[in-house]
Amino acid sequence: MSTTAQIGVTGLAVMGSNLARNFARNGYTVAVHNRTAARTHALVKDHGHEGDFIAAETAKDFVAALERPRRLVVMVKAGGPTDAVIEEFAPLLEPGDMIIDGGNAHFADTRRREAALREQGIHFVGAGISGGEEGALNGPSIMPGGPAESYDSLGPMLEKISAKAKDGAPCVTHVGPDGAGHFVKMVHNGIEYADMQLIGEAYQLLRDVAGYTPAQIAEIFRTWNTGRLDSYLIEITAEVLAHVDAATGKPFVDVVQDQAEQKGTGRWTVQIALDLGVPVSGIAEAVFARSLSGHSALRDASRGLAGPKPTALSAAEAGAFADRVEQALYASKIVSYTQGFHEITAATEEYDWNIDLGKVASIWRGGCIIRAAFLDRIRAAYDTRPDLPSLLSDDTFAQEIAAAQDDWREVLVAATRQGVPTPGFAAALAYYDALRAERLPAALTQGQRDYFGAHTYRRTDREGSFHTMWGQDRSEVEA
Amino acid sequence: MSTTAQIGVTGLAVMGSNLARNFARNGYTVAVHNRTAARTHALVKDHGHEGDFIAAETAKDFVAALERPRRLVVMVKAGGPTDAVIEEFAPLLEPGDMIIDGGNAHFADTRRREAALREQGIHFVGAGISGGEEGALNGPSIMPGGPAESYDSLGPMLEKISAKAKDGAPCVTHVGPDGAGHFVKMVHNGIEYADMQLIGEAYQLLRDVAGYTPAQIAEIFRTWNTGRLDSYLIEITAEVLAHVDAATGKPFVDVVQDQAEQKGTGRWTVQIALDLGVPVSGIAEAVFARSLSGHSALRDASRGLAGPKPTALSAAEAGAFADRVEQALYASKIVSYTQGFHEITAATEEYDWNIDLGKVASIWRGGCIIRAAFLDRIRAAYDTRPDLPSLLSDDTFAQEIAAAQDDWREVLVAATRQGVPTPGFAAALAYYDALRAERLPAALTQGQRDYFGAHTYRRTDREGSFHTMWGQDRSEVEA
Repeated sequence: MSTTAQIGVTGLAVMGSNLARNFARNGYTVAVHNRTAARTHALVKDHGHEGDFIAAETAKDFVAALERPRRLVVMVKAGGPTDAVIEEFAPLLEPGDMIIDGGNAHFADTRRREAALREQGIHFVGAGISGGEEGALNGPSIMPGGPAESYDSLGPMLEKISAKAKDGAPCVTHVGPDGAGHFVKMVHNGIEYADMQLIGEAYQLLRDVAGYTPAQIAEIFRTWNTGRLDSYLIEITAEVLAHVDAATGKPFVDVVQDQAEQKGTGRWTVQIALDLGVPVSGIAEAVFARSLSGHSALRDASRGLAGPKPTALSAAEAGAFADRVEQALYASKIVSYTQGFHEITAATEEYDWNIDLGKVASIWRGGCIIRAAFLDRIRAAYDTRPDLPSLLSDDTFAQEIAAAQDDWREVLVAATRQGVPTPGFAAALAYYDALRAERLPAALTQGQRDYFGAHTYRRTDREGSFHTMWGQDRSEVEA
Repeated sequence: MSTTAQIGVTGLAVMGSNLARNFARNGYTVAVHNRTAARTHALVKDHGHEGDFIAAETAKDFVAALERPRRLVVMVKAGGPTDAVIEEFAPLLEPGDMIIDGGNAHFADTRRREAALREQGIHFVGAGISGGEEGALNGPSIMPGGPAESYDSLGPMLEKISAKAKDGAPCVTHVGPDGAGHFVKMVHNGIEYADMQLIGEAYQLLRDVAGYTPAQIAEIFRTWNTGRLDSYLIEITAEVLAHVDAATGKPFVDVVQDQAEQKGTGRWTVQIALDLGVPVSGIAEAVFARSLSGHSALRDASRGLAGPKPTALSAAEAGAFADRVEQALYASKIVSYTQGFHEITAATEEYDWNIDLGKVASIWRGGCIIRAAFLDRIRAAYDTRPDLPSLLSDDTFAQEIAAAQDDWREVLVAATRQGVPTPGFAAALAYYDALRAERLPAALTQGQRDYFGAHTYRRTDREGSFHTMWGQDRSEVEA
C-alpha cells in the first residue's frame, strides 16, 4: 500500500463506496473516510483486495493522506450535509486543492460554494454523476463543472473511471464553470423523468387500447430496443414488464402500487426552466404525473367520474397500433430532448457557461440512466451545427418527426377518445404544433392584457409599444 | 379637511393613487405620501374634490397624520422597494399599528416580513388586490392575510372600498394568517393565466378549424357570455376580437405581435405547486405557452416543420363545432379551477392557514380579473361541502363534465388531426383521465426506479417497502 493517495473519497454510503472502489480498481490509491469510521474499515476489509486504499479515521488523517494538489471527493447528501463537510475540510486544505462534490446538488448551491471556496484558492468542482450504484462502480457518466484548470489533473482520472460510449469515448467532459456540471445533471434527470413518463404512456396504450399483456408488451419493448429507441430505459422496461411476482404469480407491474415517488431534480428542472423562460412542458407533465399518482385520496374520490372505457383492438389491429405507438413515443422523445437542450442553451447564455451541447450529448451516451443510441445522433446534430436553434431544426430529426407525425396524431386521437391519459404525448405534440404555428393566440392574450391592465402590446407592422384606450374612444397611443 | 386620517397610502403610482381615491370617495380621510412629493401634491390637486386627503411630504408627517392604530397601505413595487419602505416606516410605528402591503409580493416574502414585524408588535397584512387600475379606483377584489385581529378595524374599511358581488357581498375577507392573502392572490393570477390560454385556444380553433373571422368569433364569445361562461375575461375577449385597427382596417388581433408577456405570478404559481406536490398542468401549459410565443428565433426556425394545415369546415358544420368548443372550454376551465383550488388546499395544510375555500370563491366573484358567474357555483360547492376532495367531486361539476366530455374529446381530436396547438385543453383532459384512471403507469415507473436505483416500491397487497434483486435472482426483499 502506498502512503499517498491520488484521490480521496469521504462519505462511504453505497455511491461513495462504489466510486472509491472504481478508482481503486483503476489503479489509483484511494484515501477513504467516513463520519463513522466503522464503515471505512468495513470497506477496506471487504474490498481491500480490489486495489490500494488508505483508511483514514479523522479528517486530518484523510487530508494528510492525499498527494498535492489534493483531490477530495465528497459523496454525502445534497444540502446541509455537503455544507457541513466543506466547512470541516476547507480549513485543512491549501490553494490549488480540489473539492469535488459528487452529489445531486442544486446548481445554485454549487455556484455559491464555488464562489466561496475560490476566495480561499480552493477549486470546487460540482460534478453530476449518473448511473446509480452500478454506474458508480463500473463506470458512470460524469458531468464536472468548476474551474477549467481543475480538469487538467482531475479529468484523466475521471475519464479512466467513467463509462465509455460505444466508440470508446469516455463519458465525461469539463461541462463548464461553477454550477454548469450540476445544472446539466439536473436536466439529465428532468429528461429521464420525461422518458419514463412517455414509456409509461406507451405501456398503458399497448395494454388498454391494444389489449396486450405485460409479457407481450415486454416483447414489444425488446423489439423496440433493437431499433432507434435502443436505450437503457427501454431495456429495463422490458425486464420489469416481463417479471412475474413470485408471491402471487401475477405480472410484477400489477402488484406494485401505482404511486410514483420522486426526489426533486425533476421538479428543479421545471422550476428553473420557468425562471429561464424555457417551455419544458413534457418534463413538467412527467413531474405532475408522478405527484398526481400519489394523491390517493383524490384519486379514490375521482374514480367514479364519467369517461369512456378503452375497448381492446383485434389482434390484427393491435400490431399496427403498436407500430404507431413506437412512432408517437419516438417523436415525443425528440421533443423532450429538444426542451431539455433548450434549457441548457438558456442557462449557458444566462450564466456565460459556454457549454458544448454536442459534448453533453456525447457523455450521456454511456453510463447514465438516459443512455441511448439516440444520443449519438444528437451529438452528431450539434457537432454538425453547434448553433442549431433547436434539435427540431436538425434535418434528420425534422424528417423523422415528419414521418412519424400522422401516427403520433392518431395515437393521441385513440387515447383521447378512449380516455387513456397521455399528458406527455399530448404536451409534446402541442409544443411541436405551437412552434411551427404561423400565428399563435398570444396576440389575443396581449390584447386582453392591454385591455385589463394597460400592459401595452407591440404591432406586427411597426416598432414601438402601443396601448389602446379601451375604456374611451379605442384610439391607439404610443406607450 | 380633518387633521387625522383613518388610512394612509404611500406609493402613488396609478394603483396607489386610485386606491387612495377609492378610500377618499368612500368617506375616509386619507393621508397620502410618495417618495417624490410632487406626485403627492398632484394627486391632491387633481382629485382633492373627491374627498379628504392629507398630503404628507415626509415619512414622519405621514405617520403623524394617521389616527391610532395606524393603518398604512404600501403600494410600491414588490421585492426590494417594499422592504425599503418597511425599513423606513417601521421605526416610526407603535405596537398595534398596521402595515398593509397591497403589492404582488411573493407569499414567502410576506411570511418573512410578517414574522419580523410581529416581533415589534406591528401587524403586517399582505393583501392581494386584483382588478387593475380600474378595480383599485372603483372596487377591487381584496385578499388580505396577516393577523386575524387586524381585520377587526381594517376589514370594514376594505369591505367599503371593495367590489360587491351580485348578491351585494363585499369581495374581501380575511383569507388567513401571514402569507395566506398573497398566496391566494398568486393562485388567482395562475388561474387567470389558464383562463386566458384556454380562451386563446378556443379562439384559434374557431378561427382555423371552424373558419370564422375575428368579428364572428367576437359574436360567439358574446353569446357565450350570456351563459355559464359569463365572465369578465370572456366579455373583454369579445371586445378585443371585435376591435378593428384604425391604421390598417384589419382586425386588431391580426396586427398585434403574437408574443405574450408575463410578470411572474403565473410562474410562481407553478413553481410553488411543484414544491407542494400539486399537479397544476393547465396553469403550467399557460405559462409555457406565453414563453414559447416569445421565442421568436426558435419559432422562425420551426415554421417549416411538417404538419397538417387546418381545413375550414362548412358553415353548417362550423356552428356545431363552435358549440363543442364551448363544451371543451367549459370543461377545461373546471379543471383549471380544480387545480388552482387544490394548490390552495395544499398550502392551507402546509402552513396551517385554515383558508375557507368557499370564501375565496366568493370574493373572486367581483372586482378581479377572473370574476365570473361560475365562481358563485364554486362557492356553493364548498359551502355545501367544505371538505370537498376536489371541485371535480362536486356533483354539479361532475355532471357538467360528464355531459361535456364527448364534445371535449372531439374538439381535441380535431385539433390533433389538424395541427392546431391546444396544450391547455389537452392537459386538462389528461388530468381528468388520469384522476379517474383505475390504474396508472406509475407502477411501471416505480419498477424502473427500483431497477436502476434500488428506490424500492410498495405493493398493492401488503404493507411495507420492497426491493427486487434485479441484478441477481430477482427475488423480493423487504426494504
